[in-house]
Amino acid sequence: MAAQKIYVLNGPNLNLLGAREPEVYGRATLTDIEDACRMEAKEAGLLLEFRQTNAEHEMVGWLHEARTEASGLVINPAAFSYAGYAILDALKMLTCSVIEVHISNIHRREAGWRSKSILTQVVTGIVSGLGVKGYPLAVRHLAQSLAVAA
Amino acid sequence: MAAQKIYVLNGPNLNLLGAREPEVYGRATLTDIEDACRMEAKEAGLLLEFRQTNAEHEMVGWLHEARTEASGLVINPAAFSYAGYAILDALKMLTCSVIEVHISNIHRREAGWRSKSILTQVVTGIVSGLGVKGYPLAVRHLAQSLAVAA
Amino acid sequence: MAAQKIYVLNGPNLNLLGAREPEVYGRATLTDIEDACRMEAKEAGLLLEFRQTNAEHEMVGWLHEARTEASGLVINPAAFSYAGYAILDALKMLTCSVIEVHISNIHRREAGWRSKSILTQVVTGIVSGLGVKGYPLAVRHLAQSLAVAA
Amino acid sequence: MAAQKIYVLNGPNLNLLGAREPEVYGRATLTDIEDACRMEAKEAGLLLEFRQTNAEHEMVGWLHEARTEASGLVINPAAFSYAGYAILDALKMLTCSVIEVHISNIHRREAGWRSKSILTQVVTGIVSGLGVKGYPLAVRHLAQSLAVAA
Amino acid sequence: MAAQKIYVLNGPNLNLLGAREPEVYGRATLTDIEDACRMEAKEAGLLLEFRQTNAEHEMVGWLHEARTEASGLVINPAAFSYAGYAILDALKMLTCSVIEVHISNIHRREAGWRSKSILTQVVTGIVSGLGVKGYPLAVRHLAQSLAVAA
Amino acid sequence: MAAQKIYVLNGPNLNLLGAREPEVYGRATLTDIEDACRMEAKEAGLLLEFRQTNAEHEMVGWLHEARTEASGLVINPAAFSYAGYAILDALKMLTCSVIEVHISNIHRREAGWRSKSILTQVVTGIVSGLGVKGYPLAVRHLAQSLAVAA
Amino acid sequence: MAAQKIYVLNGPNLNLLGAREPEVYGRATLTDIEDACRMEAKEAGLLLEFRQTNAEHEMVGWLHEARTEASGLVINPAAFSYAGYAILDALKMLTCSVIEVHISNIHRREAGWRSKSILTQVVTGIVSGLGVKGYPLAVRHLAQSLAVAA
Amino acid sequence: MAAQKIYVLNGPNLNLLGAREPEVYGRATLTDIEDACRMEAKEAGLLLEFRQTNAEHEMVGWLHEARTEASGLVINPAAFSYAGYAILDALKMLTCSVIEVHISNIHRREAGWRSKSILTQVVTGIVSGLGVKGYPLAVRHLAQSLAVAA
Amino acid sequence: MAAQKIYVLNGPNLNLLGAREPEVYGRATLTDIEDACRMEAKEAGLLLEFRQTNAEHEMVGWLHEARTEASGLVINPAAFSYAGYAILDALKMLTCSVIEVHISNIHRREAGWRSKSILTQVVTGIVSGLGVKGYPLAVRHLAQSLAVAA
Amino acid sequence: MAAQKIYVLNGPNLNLLGAREPEVYGRATLTDIEDACRMEAKEAGLLLEFRQTNAEHEMVGWLHEARTEASGLVINPAAFSYAGYAILDALKMLTCSVIEVHISNIHRREAGWRSKSILTQVVTGIVSGLGVKGYPLAVRHLAQSLAVAA
Amino acid sequence: MAAQKIYVLNGPNLNLLGAREPEVYGRATLTDIEDACRMEAKEAGLLLEFRQTNAEHEMVGWLHEARTEASGLVINPAAFSYAGYAILDALKMLTCSVIEVHISNIHRREAGWRSKSILTQVVTGIVSGLGVKGYPLAVRHLAQSLAVAA
Amino acid sequence: MAAQKIYVLNGPNLNLLGAREPEVYGRATLTDIEDACRMEAKEAGLLLEFRQTNAEHEMVGWLHEARTEASGLVINPAAFSYAGYAILDALKMLTCSVIEVHISNIHRREAGWRSKSILTQVVTGIVSGLGVKGYPLAVRHLAQSLAVAA
Repeated sequence: MAAQKIYVLNGPNLNLLGAREPEVYGRATLTDIEDACRMEAKEAGLLLEFRQTNAEHEMVGWLHEARTEASGLVINPAAFSYAGYAILDALKMLTCSVIEVHISNIHRREAGWRSKSILTQVVTGIVSGLGVKGYPLAVRHLAQSLAVAA
Repeated sequence: MAAQKIYVLNGPNLNLLGAREPEVYGRATLTDIEDACRMEAKEAGLLLEFRQTNAEHEMVGWLHEARTEASGLVINPAAFSYAGYAILDALKMLTCSVIEVHISNIHRREAGWRSKSILTQVVTGIVSGLGVKGYPLAVRHLAQSLAVAA
Repeated sequence: MAAQKIYVLNGPNLNLLGAREPEVYGRATLTDIEDACRMEAKEAGLLLEFRQTNAEHEMVGWLHEARTEASGLVINPAAFSYAGYAILDALKMLTCSVIEVHISNIHRREAGWRSKSILTQVVTGIVSGLGVKGYPLAVRHLAQSLAVAA
Repeated sequence: MAAQKIYVLNGPNLNLLGAREPEVYGRATLTDIEDACRMEAKEAGLLLEFRQTNAEHEMVGWLHEARTEASGLVINPAAFSYAGYAILDALKMLTCSVIEVHISNIHRREAGWRSKSILTQVVTGIVSGLGVKGYPLAVRHLAQSLAVAA
Repeated sequence: MAAQKIYVLNGPNLNLLGAREPEVYGRATLTDIEDACRMEAKEAGLLLEFRQTNAEHEMVGWLHEARTEASGLVINPAAFSYAGYAILDALKMLTCSVIEVHISNIHRREAGWRSKSILTQVVTGIVSGLGVKGYPLAVRHLAQSLAVAA
Repeated sequence: MAAQKIYVLNGPNLNLLGAREPEVYGRATLTDIEDACRMEAKEAGLLLEFRQTNAEHEMVGWLHEARTEASGLVINPAAFSYAGYAILDALKMLTCSVIEVHISNIHRREAGWRSKSILTQVVTGIVSGLGVKGYPLAVRHLAQSLAVAA
Repeated sequence: MAAQKIYVLNGPNLNLLGAREPEVYGRATLTDIEDACRMEAKEAGLLLEFRQTNAEHEMVGWLHEARTEASGLVINPAAFSYAGYAILDALKMLTCSVIEVHISNIHRREAGWRSKSILTQVVTGIVSGLGVKGYPLAVRHLAQSLAVAA
Repeated sequence: MAAQKIYVLNGPNLNLLGAREPEVYGRATLTDIEDACRMEAKEAGLLLEFRQTNAEHEMVGWLHEARTEASGLVINPAAFSYAGYAILDALKMLTCSVIEVHISNIHRREAGWRSKSILTQVVTGIVSGLGVKGYPLAVRHLAQSLAVAA
Repeated sequence: MAAQKIYVLNGPNLNLLGAREPEVYGRATLTDIEDACRMEAKEAGLLLEFRQTNAEHEMVGWLHEARTEASGLVINPAAFSYAGYAILDALKMLTCSVIEVHISNIHRREAGWRSKSILTQVVTGIVSGLGVKGYPLAVRHLAQSLAVAA
Repeated sequence: MAAQKIYVLNGPNLNLLGAREPEVYGRATLTDIEDACRMEAKEAGLLLEFRQTNAEHEMVGWLHEARTEASGLVINPAAFSYAGYAILDALKMLTCSVIEVHISNIHRREAGWRSKSILTQVVTGIVSGLGVKGYPLAVRHLAQSLAVAA
Repeated sequence: MAAQKIYVLNGPNLNLLGAREPEVYGRATLTDIEDACRMEAKEAGLLLEFRQTNAEHEMVGWLHEARTEASGLVINPAAFSYAGYAILDALKMLTCSVIEVHISNIHRREAGWRSKSILTQVVTGIVSGLGVKGYPLAVRHLAQSLAVAA
Repeated sequence: MAAQKIYVLNGPNLNLLGAREPEVYGRATLTDIEDACRMEAKEAGLLLEFRQTNAEHEMVGWLHEARTEASGLVINPAAFSYAGYAILDALKMLTCSVIEVHISNIHRREAGWRSKSILTQVVTGIVSGLGVKGYPLAVRHLAQSLAVAA
């Protein structure tokens, strides 16, 4: 029987993580995050798909793919959090658990659109403000849930 | 040198967790959650304070105590999420990391006051919708952060 | 078989009813109300718990107690109507009928927070503006419902 | 000296009560409610006018009539609750007590126009969510008030 | 050539003007207003239609009639000011001048729906707060406009 | 077996369609629309009830009648779209399909109450902005649905 | 005994009336309006003060003067309608009748600040949309009121 | 002379129609819809372009193409309904008729962004809630309009 | 005759004043404030009750006591400013003067709930932003008022 | 070394204080207030500038002057509280302490623009509702602050 | 033929530009800006009127003058941006091009009244955030437009 | 040393500029604008990148490229102004000056989303309503700023 697969999908501008203003955002790059996720997945005997895109339609396509391929999904929607309605509709089609991750606590910022993601209403859970460590934590949680269900 | 201590504080009505509507909320009780947290803390060589109260002023007092005693804090404010301004002020005085935990994804419910906690603007991070497993995850994250900082 | 019990619970400042501005609020005290309720309960062969508190956590505790003890419940939340979220959550756990009573018609006052109670969304029924006579009316209604169900 | 008269007035669509979806609304018809009210009135030595209309202007006319004929008035405005401004103005001319009755707790429904009646600001009291039993309760309350005043 | 005709149309509850609370609203009745309007019309050689209704559809019918019969129109919509959308649509079909009259200054009352009429957006002019004298003033203004145009 | 019947009901001011401002609204009258609907109904072997009223209570009565008589219903609520709560309640009682028709696209107008009908939340479907041809289209759709279900 | 005096005060930009876009606003100038008012005043045996200013403090000063000098006051606040709080406070000190006049119907324009004057809440009456003829009408009304009171 | 062409354009996630939750959305696929549209077009002697995309810029490009190629256009914007401003601007450039189709009645859902499409303000007409049959109905309407204009 | 008494009541978290972030809030403690108040009271021949609590019900109890014992009252509600409805109701029962004190200018902070206290609508006066010196200033004002009234 | 100067600036309509409705506002005039302020200033060895204006630009000019001349400033902006943006900008340029004084508690009035001053966001402190005695209190506070800083 | 004239008008507090907080706003004074504008105007063979005022009525007067004298107008309304309704009305009378200039980008600040000028709805164009260089740029643009039109 | 480069980036639908409705938008095409920008750049010794896209992700990619390549950037976001959150985030990473250009004054249109761009909060400056001439003006301004800084 084939190993189960976890998808970790990243939204726009995250390809530049770590390269800019390292004194603010830290020096961790998206590759560092991928490594940490891979380690958690490997430990749990799971496969990992780790991707980033600036294009909403590509993200939608990956979610369509995940419908049949993923056993769990982590998404950092970044700027897609605010008007990504096509992503929202695609997320609603998924039957596996979905964890929305934000590196910083988006609710901490001053009032306004920045403090709310439209996607939170359709995901299973949210991990926000735990920095880049929020990613492996989310993968670990999905792994544990799959183990329990198994 | 004394071991560091993590506080896990629970708001109103959580004392009844598990006893009511187990088909909805599961059969896990607050004691089960405490056990899971204790295991994580022990593994990391940390002490644990685990408490529950229905009284806002008692929660405020515990947060005052935590100012000097806690190295990390997990809070499930429950109904205090919506008008617990005294708790908000007390949280602002803390210098250690604070993780706000909600068992269910409060953003998933229909629009209205239920979907926003006034405390999220002053905590370090949020873990929401991961069920009772969100607690030990938050404790583990605090332990890792302390280990890194040490 | 033990007699069934009706709870009548009163929120903050109601302990001063009748003692202040009698030309406005009438001379009826909380004790007078208790007597009228007791008479209705007695006539229906029911026991009565009649209490008042200024502390929200005490009210929450009584509602927890009522989960197993009460066959019907009357609550005048007074100022807890506007931000008593812990009470709201506790009320949701009750399975017996709950009647929210307000002595004056709170919708009659000018627009603003005073004209809406957050609790009305989770109670069975509302009796408002019938003066102190609203209490025994509510008790009588609960008694009749129990008789029908019996 | 002629007996005093209580008016019980019903708004649009209530003529179909009991005939549709009895598993939801119960099997009680408007005639059943009228009977229960008549029994209460008779017991108190009062006359009863019980009417229903789908036309706002007819309701306004009845309220004009009630100015001189009624000693107390019960109104279930149904859909007139939301934009019945002419009824609101007519109610303001009445000097007797007016009880607004709703069969279900209109505040229980989700947020929106359905949860507020514009008439509540000008009536004496409200009875809501007590089912069809709210009607005779309101009549009984009016009867008691008249007895006290007599 | 036939004399031109002015319509003066009155909305719900105005049939009771003068009969209730004369110390507040004065003792002038709708008949007194009609007399004052008739005098102004006569002086200007105009015919006068003066009517009152509690039914919105009757008002709509009169406005349809006025499309071909009226050279000018005065309307006191009373409670139809707030949700009389059918009247609004009917008023938009008129080509003659329309003056909306309110006996009291509806903008003087506290904030809320009472301070705005939805009809003001489609009428030619507004006379508000000049008491019952606002009616003949409006008729006189229409008469003068017709004289100028003639 | 009797033929099935389609109801086509029209709200206030539509009796004047075609007679006013033909350069704007076209010269089609309500009778023209009735003819086009009748042709569609006849072709499908259905009976047709086609009516217009300026009175909300009459519309409510027709909807009550339609509960047992109609196999499908088309309604152009016109001005009843904005505060016709009694019609909304009556529509909710219908079990057949209901199509709301507007001759012009009401969403095209500038922002404000004109761009939303309160009835859309309880109808099966909406046809808006297709001119007078929207009526026979709606009838045709109902006929096809009945044919499929038959 | 000295003759009574009516004040007619005009706000900013009205000094240009008639000089610009006469095809839109007509050719009547502020002097023409003054003449029409003077004629009405003279006929009633009253004196007239007619003034215009672009400066809010000057308008406030005139209102202070009017407290002891005026028996009635007409004000076209023009742009002061929207943020003239000092004028609002000054108007509240007046004990004579105050008529607010607008040449065009300000409620007719599209929704927004333009459709509401903050002053309407403190004036006796409003005349709006009757063109420049609204001024003498308002003067005439004040004259009649003074005659009745004399 | 070349046959006229109708464009039918579909937004994101509609490629999965019929494949998921058939008990909810029915088993009709986008290909079934295309077939039904093609049949209507053929019957009217028209060509048909039927396309689907998850990418907003592709939809914008098709609309640019449609400016010169299309004689009528049907669009089901799906999730583009809520923030597809570039599509809105592109739609405004079209001179042919545009019908917006929604399979379910989007106004039927609870209040919020889901109940309004920003595109409705620039389209000719709307067909909503008629299921997949709304598509051929829209095509037929466009065909009839072209026939009349021809 | 017994000396008159001034109450100075402090809300939640104020027990920690001076102990935390002295570079921000200064080093003055609640005891320093009490001393300054006592000096003012003594100078005026008044007694002083100075208390602090984190519990809303305790504050309510003190206000009940103050009804008969206090000749003047100073309250720094701190976090009770925002949802302390029971305190609001208790304050309304007081007949002596009440001054609400805030150490910092709560209106200076960015827009939001922090800039408004619900209690300001029922107190006599407000002193805000004058630092800890606002307390003795308020006591002095109450003393002067009592002296004038004596 | 020259004595320091305190500015006390008064906004529109305050020149009439005491002269109107003395039974409501008391008989204290602006001169009485000036005398009380002068006494406080003299006692502290400070000079005093006390002025009133109905013109916003004059107030702005005085604030420009105060930038270099004032050691402390008291302002009762009266009606300038609501739209005095030029005053707001001028106040932001001041480096000395600024106390905003209101004779009555502006927050006590019913909800609306009257309960909020736009200036409070840029002043040091607020004294409101302490009557005319609020002025000398504010001067005294400024004097004490200067003494401490000296 | 006389040279054309450009008006550059400045609102309140701009007379202090450069003199205060030069590290923030730079050291450029209004005179420096005037010089830069004059240079641009001279180069284009245009006359220049450059003025500043703290008084709204003076600004209104200048705009009246500009109706006949100006061929182009630049305005930095400063604080008049937010409640300068008389200026708005005066601007609407101008037929030449009007450029609104703001030294800093007013939209950059946090949400609130500061981010919107009521005047932008009636000006031709906006230049904002280009520092003091925005002035000569606006003059240059007006000059070019006049050259094209000539 | 290599010449500095200015980026001029255009959003969706701008590729059609000039080709449609030339009587409204003028006949200038995007190529004409490019020419005018090139002339300004050449004169200042700068290189120019001029691009247009209908795809948000392509715009994001260009902004990433501009982080290291551009010395100044002009962006006409067109429809991306309203929901282009990914562009907003990408713009925030730029360190060079950014000028947002709109051909028409977007604030001039009626109230609504069209009058506000979410991007204005992160750009250096805005040029709006100056027609196609706004582009070269912005380029010139960037050139001058670079010259000063050099």
